[in-house]
Amino acid sequence: MSLLLAFTGVSPDSWVKAINEADPSLEVVIAGDPGVDLSSVRHALVWKPQAGLLKSLPHLETVFSIGAGVDYLMDDPTLPDVTVVRVVDADLTARMTEWVVLQVLLQHRRQRLYDAQQRQRLWRAHSQVAARDVRVGIMGVGVLGQDAARALTMLGFDVAGWSRTPKTIEGLATYDGDAGLDAFLARTDILVVLLPLTDETRGILNAALFAKLAKDGPLGGAVLINAGRGGLQVEADIIPALERGDLIAASLDVFQTEPLPETSPLWDDERIVITPHVAAESDPRAIARYVAGQIRAAARGEPLKNVVDRRRGY
Amino acid sequence: MSLLLAFTGVSPDSWVKAINEADPSLEVVIAGDPGVDLSSVRHALVWKPQAGLLKSLPHLETVFSIGAGVDYLMDDPTLPDVTVVRVVDADLTARMTEWVVLQVLLQHRRQRLYDAQQRQRLWRAHSQVAARDVRVGIMGVGVLGQDAARALTMLGFDVAGWSRTPKTIEGLATYDGDAGLDAFLARTDILVVLLPLTDETRGILNAALFAKLAKDGPLGGAVLINAGRGGLQVEADIIPALERGDLIAASLDVFQTEPLPETSPLWDDERIVITPHVAAESDPRAIARYVAGQIRAAARGEPLKNVVDRRRGY
Ligand SMILES: NC(=O)c1ccc[n+]([C@@H]2O[C@H](COP(=O)([O-])OP(=O)(O)OC[C@H]3O[C@@H](n4cnc5c(N)ncnc54)[C@H](OP(=O)(O)O)[C@@H]3O)[C@@H](O)[C@H]2O)c1
Ligand SMILES: NC(=O)c1ccc[n+]([C@@H]2O[C@H](COP(=O)([O-])OP(=O)(O)OC[C@H]3O[C@@H](n4cnc5c(N)ncnc54)[C@H](OP(=O)(O)O)[C@@H]3O)[C@@H](O)[C@H]2O)c1
Repeated sequence: MSLLLAFTGVSPDSWVKAINEADPSLEVVIAGDPGVDLSSVRHALVWKPQAGLLKSLPHLETVFSIGAGVDYLMDDPTLPDVTVVRVVDADLTARMTEWVVLQVLLQHRRQRLYDAQQRQRLWRAHSQVAARDVRVGIMGVGVLGQDAARALTMLGFDVAGWSRTPKTIEGLATYDGDAGLDAFLARTDILVVLLPLTDETRGILNAALFAKLAKDGPLGGAVLINAGRGGLQVEADIIPALERGDLIAASLDVFQTEPLPETSPLWDDERIVITPHVAAESDPRAIARYVAGQIRAAARGEPLKNVVDRRRGY
Repeated sequence: MSLLLAFTGVSPDSWVKAINEADPSLEVVIAGDPGVDLSSVRHALVWKPQAGLLKSLPHLETVFSIGAGVDYLMDDPTLPDVTVVRVVDADLTARMTEWVVLQVLLQHRRQRLYDAQQRQRLWRAHSQVAARDVRVGIMGVGVLGQDAARALTMLGFDVAGWSRTPKTIEGLATYDGDAGLDAFLARTDILVVLLPLTDETRGILNAALFAKLAKDGPLGGAVLINAGRGGLQVEADIIPALERGDLIAASLDVFQTEPLPETSPLWDDERIVITPHVAAESDPRAIARYVAGQIRAAARGEPLKNVVDRRRGY
């Protein structure tokens, strides 16, 4: 059995090693290497593969993405009619929860204000609300959103979630669909976004949405935290929303254009925390084990897990 | 029944209101108010009371401290032989856990590095270890330390605790006493200090201790996080330990002198995060309910809870 690696912007080295460790019987083939025969490839592990490459593989059955987000594949008009599998991995989920909890606490506890005071050698305490008085709203309560909700609930925050379809999750207030969105936003002081990028969610984080967030909350306004995808946000609406007071702060890991252009005004705004798409790095070893396990299971005739619904787009 | 309030540096207003709400039958008397008769006072709620005041109260039985730390009382040679009760309160504990989790994640996820990159408009990802590969060591696993341990374990960190007496705590590796200290330090990448300040713990965070922390860890060195008391640390040893590489970073909420003097070199060191003793603010309402409940229970002949052992000093 062979596995094709087709990456753009990611070095295959650590992945080759990880796959060899996960399953020495898998033969690794790298796209673009001279003289490789792709005619028999049935499985591919990809990140932004060269346009048209996947279509050129006559026996391709399954495409595994090394990231949890598959929007780049869904947006590719040349993607053939194969099964697309996304990553669901405990290690990746735990890393995302670390980032989300850090950013929620950093905003809740006004770390940026204390950082500024430190630079001024200023010793001044500010009154602090308790987590239980702060309403966190998580947009997207799939694998990542549910784990973040669990951690934030455990820290005492008052957490709710919003999803496409109705959900019942113990200990979590849930809202769904267009009908549930306004009520969800109205009770949200800190908005955590863990949605996939699809035709329905593109640009959902815009001026109109920011205006619907809670205004009267204990933090003095609403905070935006986005680790889903940059395409979810209308970036030009963020600073105006801060100016208007619809938002008081933001933590962003993802951007419409990445790397974030040097000319972006987001860089210079003290109210915005910027991290360079590092919220949840994919660990090659964990993902190689996951992919190798899925390929073996499929060979035994078992169904693949975490298959993307191409109609929904995630 | 009356309750004397004797505070220095804390306004009694919100406390009077909170006590009236918690138990309207408790008559509140404020130290220093003109014409107050202190001769019948049996209970006092204090924060750094005027020296000699407590000794002058002929019927004083119980002193409640509004803070979890009672080192300021233990250090008072004029403290009469009365029962000293410290605060144990779920709200205060939750707030401390928020601060500890924030500082551990901020250091673990290199937030200060990403902040510096943001100021330079620099988009650069750094390799990131997973929480499960990072060993957190908590000095002091009492009420606060155990709650912090629970939260950090839930986030995936590899947590151990160190205390005076042997302890068995589910899911936590424990060390105790002088005999257990070196082994505890040698396995610690992030040292979280939640000890009380006593004769035994004063100055325990010094150059010799920093030198015993793990050197070969996944963060590239050891991190100090202190929210116990400033007197635990030999402040002059911290920057030299950073220079030597025994430490790579620190988060400090408490200092030998508070407010931290403007002349302290700690302010300017980017590797050090400074917060102005705000880790766990006492909420007057929660603490008033706690104190009123204890006074009522004592009146019914029940034993007081969370009594300080004057010999141990905490
Ligand atoms: N920044 C990073 O480093 C990083 C790393 C990994 C992943 N991510 C992003 O995180 C996203 C989520 O990952 P996941 O594993 O949690 O995905 P998932 O398990 O598929 O969950 C997606 C959630 O979004 C909801 N959703 C989708 N479309 C919606 C719509 N139109 N309206 C309302 N809710 C909608 C889904 O609702 P239902 O429950 O009703 O289906 C589900 O709750 C990924 O797609 C990726 O873009 C970012
Ligand atoms: N920065 C802030 O805003 C803030 C707010 C609240 C409290 N605090 C500080 O936090 C401290 C801890 O509070 P807590 O409620 O958790 O106290 P606690 O329940 O009494 O726990 C104290 C812990 O420290 C250990 N300990 C004491 N002396 C020791 C020694 N010589 N060697 C080793 N371990 C020793 C105890 O060991 P045993 O278990 O064996 O007794 C216990 O595990 C307070 O005293 C206060 O100074 C700071």
